Amino acid sequence: MTGRVIRNIERADPEVVDGLAACGVATVHEAQGRSGLLASRIRPIYPGARIAGSAVTISAPPGDNWMIHVAIEQLREGDIMVLAPTSPCEDGYFGDLLATSAMARGCRGLVIDAGVRDVRDLTEMRFPVWSKAVFSQGTVKATLGSVNVPIVCAGAAIEPGDVIVADDDGVCVVKRGDAERVLEKAREREAKEEEKRQRLAAGELGLDIYGMRGKLEAMGLRYE
Amino acid sequence: MTGRVIRNIERADPEVVDGLAACGVATVHEAQGRSGLLASRIRPIYPGARIAGSAVTISAPPGDNWMIHVAIEQLREGDIMVLAPTSPCEDGYFGDLLATSAMARGCRGLVIDAGVRDVRDLTEMRFPVWSKAVFSQGTVKATLGSVNVPIVCAGAAIEPGDVIVADDDGVCVVKRGDAERVLEKAREREAKEEEKRQRLAAGELGLDIYGMRGKLEAMGLRYE
Amino acid sequence: MTGRVIRNIERADPEVVDGLAACGVATVHEAQGRSGLLASRIRPIYPGARIAGSAVTISAPPGDNWMIHVAIEQLREGDIMVLAPTSPCEDGYFGDLLATSAMARGCRGLVIDAGVRDVRDLTEMRFPVWSKAVFSQGTVKATLGSVNVPIVCAGAAIEPGDVIVADDDGVCVVKRGDAERVLEKAREREAKEEEKRQRLAAGELGLDIYGMRGKLEAMGLRYE
Amino acid sequence: MTGRVIRNIERADPEVVDGLAACGVATVHEAQGRSGLLASRIRPIYPGARIAGSAVTISAPPGDNWMIHVAIEQLREGDIMVLAPTSPCEDGYFGDLLATSAMARGCRGLVIDAGVRDVRDLTEMRFPVWSKAVFSQGTVKATLGSVNVPIVCAGAAIEPGDVIVADDDGVCVVKRGDAERVLEKAREREAKEEEKRQRLAAGELGLDIYGMRGKLEAMGLRYE
Amino acid sequence: MTGRVIRNIERADPEVVDGLAACGVATVHEAQGRSGLLASRIRPIYPGARIAGSAVTISAPPGDNWMIHVAIEQLREGDIMVLAPTSPCEDGYFGDLLATSAMARGCRGLVIDAGVRDVRDLTEMRFPVWSKAVFSQGTVKATLGSVNVPIVCAGAAIEPGDVIVADDDGVCVVKRGDAERVLEKAREREAKEEEKRQRLAAGELGLDIYGMRGKLEAMGLRYE
Amino acid sequence: MTGRVIRNIERADPEVVDGLAACGVATVHEAQGRSGLLASRIRPIYPGARIAGSAVTISAPPGDNWMIHVAIEQLREGDIMVLAPTSPCEDGYFGDLLATSAMARGCRGLVIDAGVRDVRDLTEMRFPVWSKAVFSQGTVKATLGSVNVPIVCAGAAIEPGDVIVADDDGVCVVKRGDAERVLEKAREREAKEEEKRQRLAAGELGLDIYGMRGKLEAMGLRYE
Repeated sequence: MTGRVIRNIERADPEVVDGLAACGVATVHEAQGRSGLLASRIRPIYPGARIAGSAVTISAPPGDNWMIHVAIEQLREGDIMVLAPTSPCEDGYFGDLLATSAMARGCRGLVIDAGVRDVRDLTEMRFPVWSKAVFSQGTVKATLGSVNVPIVCAGAAIEPGDVIVADDDGVCVVKRGDAERVLEKAREREAKEEEKRQRLAAGELGLDIYGMRGKLEAMGLRYE
Repeated sequence: MTGRVIRNIERADPEVVDGLAACGVATVHEAQGRSGLLASRIRPIYPGARIAGSAVTISAPPGDNWMIHVAIEQLREGDIMVLAPTSPCEDGYFGDLLATSAMARGCRGLVIDAGVRDVRDLTEMRFPVWSKAVFSQGTVKATLGSVNVPIVCAGAAIEPGDVIVADDDGVCVVKRGDAERVLEKAREREAKEEEKRQRLAAGELGLDIYGMRGKLEAMGLRYE
Repeated sequence: MTGRVIRNIERADPEVVDGLAACGVATVHEAQGRSGLLASRIRPIYPGARIAGSAVTISAPPGDNWMIHVAIEQLREGDIMVLAPTSPCEDGYFGDLLATSAMARGCRGLVIDAGVRDVRDLTEMRFPVWSKAVFSQGTVKATLGSVNVPIVCAGAAIEPGDVIVADDDGVCVVKRGDAERVLEKAREREAKEEEKRQRLAAGELGLDIYGMRGKLEAMGLRYE
Repeated sequence: MTGRVIRNIERADPEVVDGLAACGVATVHEAQGRSGLLASRIRPIYPGARIAGSAVTISAPPGDNWMIHVAIEQLREGDIMVLAPTSPCEDGYFGDLLATSAMARGCRGLVIDAGVRDVRDLTEMRFPVWSKAVFSQGTVKATLGSVNVPIVCAGAAIEPGDVIVADDDGVCVVKRGDAERVLEKAREREAKEEEKRQRLAAGELGLDIYGMRGKLEAMGLRYE
Repeated sequence: MTGRVIRNIERADPEVVDGLAACGVATVHEAQGRSGLLASRIRPIYPGARIAGSAVTISAPPGDNWMIHVAIEQLREGDIMVLAPTSPCEDGYFGDLLATSAMARGCRGLVIDAGVRDVRDLTEMRFPVWSKAVFSQGTVKATLGSVNVPIVCAGAAIEPGDVIVADDDGVCVVKRGDAERVLEKAREREAKEEEKRQRLAAGELGLDIYGMRGKLEAMGLRYE
Repeated sequence: MTGRVIRNIERADPEVVDGLAACGVATVHEAQGRSGLLASRIRPIYPGARIAGSAVTISAPPGDNWMIHVAIEQLREGDIMVLAPTSPCEDGYFGDLLATSAMARGCRGLVIDAGVRDVRDLTEMRFPVWSKAVFSQGTVKATLGSVNVPIVCAGAAIEPGDVIVADDDGVCVVKRGDAERVLEKAREREAKEEEKRQRLAAGELGLDIYGMRGKLEAMGLRYE
């Protein structure tokens, strides 16, 4: 079942994708019912990046980055590569040369449940990577994997073409078919939060804004 | 035994608290006999913050941040919230809205043996957090915990009103009743260190400054 | 077998050492056949440092930093201290006073499979440390270890005088006797990479540059 | 999207399920192309259990085992419960009372990416559990999850009705629609292995049986 | 503040202690309001032990087991030693000789947030140990710690004389002053559980026994 | 530098090897000055095995077990295979077929800083394995490693022909040239321990047997 490359995948509307990037991971995660988060071990190699894009998925053997070369050919403007090794691995699958190639094809970043290297160069190039490790260990090109097949990456199920949102808080996936609806909800949430933020900044308490006092008392909270 | 909020806690003298902040975690930890450190997994979300404050403690169920709202009402100028989940958890209990509310009440920061989110916003707001994870996972408001009860946070026993010192090295707790004495010792230590720093910078060796050569030889150290 | 200090160790040619620093960890690791990497848990305390130097090795008991004082006397201009505890430990063996002393002797940095403290000061001093933890926990001076004996640090076998290369990607060791040959290969690799970088930046694919298509097809890769 | 219970799920042919149990995890995993393994942190609470069954899936909030009660009603003879918390958790969701109830409905075991308790009783009852922790921490019944929805458990995507195979090696999932084909391949594999086992036991080498010598030589293996 | 040995500690009533042992960790933990559990990393070296006893606490430096010798003199019939290192450590503080000595003084077992060795001998001697690691690494006798002072062991605050309960599920501490009340509650809980066990074994559902259906429906659970 | 197989390695005297097995890991580790232990993550797949043998070392790529086939040909009666992956990996490199082949050549066991599978079969065959994981994940045969070269396995430097000692406490390596001397010291240690065991069993205290009271008092230990 490995050794497959799916060429034509559907992607979400670019404006929706960019809208999700602007909302950020925490808001998008909430807006879609608290699902789709990748595990907290996936961290950005430098602070400040905030992107969204369409997932080009890669299933790769441990310590073998051959499929990244295959995946790069499938990239389009606005894509994000998402790599899940077939067993736990922290080798450095990706560095500045592959980033140069991916950027030349419009790739916005990489999410990888493994290692990355050349992080100083990647930082200077502003090619953002979210990974579980920074590790120089080299990889081979000996065994096939697959590109654009469904994967589980850092605990999240991801289909090719799903929307990946990534920022300093981590990484979240939005099902392609849900993207428009989730964006709408995310923006509603942002609007509501803005109003709350002002009230909280003015000193009002969440206990009052959210009307929690009665329920807390009913559940037996005792002030001493 | 959960479901308690202790309203009136005693706090240390604000000048003593600020003095401890200036000394920093490593010095304070040494000055009080190498006790009170929180585990090394508790890391700042951005470098450079250096604070001390009185602990408002929170014991919260895993994945439930209701008690933070309750705790915020108990905050006074100069306090630091310290949250210990009742079992290991890395959910994102805290984000920019709660930080806005806490800052409005004079809170100086949060120490949490769990996750935090909106770290980009928190960084811009300069609201420092020391946590074991950055993770967007949302929490519920369904089960009671307690506020201002004794807790164990990241391996350290903390009473409400104890002094929390936090900087790039991590987090340390000073018993409220010991704060003044510890500050005194910390300042003595700093004074002594300054003198040693100058001698070491001039090329003198610790072996000589501390008179270690004799003891090392007596224990059998061999130069070859 | 503990309690030994080897005074006179051989070091690699300083120009070779500096050449390796300029190449960086990932390139050096590849140039010597993908060996010598320290485990990925060893991370820099601040980004941007990029050094190489001759290893002054330290084998120290857990929670006991006495041997660092002994090692500092053995330091020469251009050395890097490398400390491996005799059992897993994350105590803060090293801080700003020891760094002051080490810098006074020309030391370029520290690699330690344990903890470090005073990281804010070390950052301001630009004394780079690669460690497995930042932790203020103090250490004692009670038990002997050894200086300049062979050690295993974070999974890598290191002899005194070996060349340590360290940057944002982590830490790599080059056997002293291999240093010149490895530098040569590293520079060849850099030259080749530069040419590839330009072709990749121009949009050529690794699949074509490296002639991978035939082998992938032969192994059964299917495009769908 | 939470708060759903799917009542009628399809299950695989019981004979196929039992056949897969007899083959065991390692063989089944190989037979289906090396996919479907749950992470190695999922370990049996006692050695020797070897089961297969149809997955009744549970998505549960951290520290909340309410949905197990809901799931038990959905159990049929031959089922295995599979619980994935919505964020990392090691609380003890399950103990001897729930096991008593599950056994009364014909349940063969539990796979849980969280904690379990009463393991002494469970062992005496011969109710096998594969979990990531043994931990007595109690859970609440406050927030909804879902039963019989697709989940990701310990890194593996699982649909309700998929076949779960579990033994001392861990846990593997087989897609319901693939079960028959996988069983066939697994039995072929077992037959072949038996023949190889006898040759290897007689002293023949894998190098010869599998004809590896030529390829190794071609790749440059040197005997010294 | 280290270097203290408290000679006379108060202990709970031996009958209460034995009663708690019979109830086991999970029941005791529930009976006292879900508090007092040690972290799940603390595991028994062999299955089947089920003990309770009065805590003789030990605070020891990393890699230094001197204080165990001091503590053994303080042991009385029915005690359990509880050791917390002052920083994370997995060295083998304890083996068959110390167990021989402890058993000679009536000690029932050891709980240690570090390592243990000679586990084969300890198993044969039936001296139960709950530890975070099995590791032969030897320790020194060079630095003072304390005996019978308050400690935090594996996340739980423990006072000398508190009751330690330990079985296959892990370890729980009961405050000495609460022991009698907790035992009473634990027995009530056991009685209730027995009745429930029989109903569940007969096929009744928790949904009905606990009357959960209404609340689940009110919260929006949907059957599809 | 990979792709090498060293055919003729020297081994220690079989009687010395067997003597070390009888002493066990903890005693041998102490007898050689507390060195040579493998990390505590290396655990036996079943309790009770107690072996020693000559190391046939294997350096293998992550997820690639080809070199085990090559190594088996190099095995002689009394050898133990020791495998270190070139980067962290927990794949199941080894199962019952390879064990059958290794046993046919007189191999006594396997030490592997990775995963193993078929543990039920291996237990029945009484082929002991010490590993960092039990995991069924299959491996490929695509990339060369080396056999009988120096390796670092789980933190310990091992040369081919060194003596591996393994039991329920873990694994220890003894340099081939030191084996005879270490055995002698180990036996001396055992003799001394036996005498101490009897005194301790009779109720004498370590404080008295080892004459610790004076030193403790001198260091300031206070009884209260």
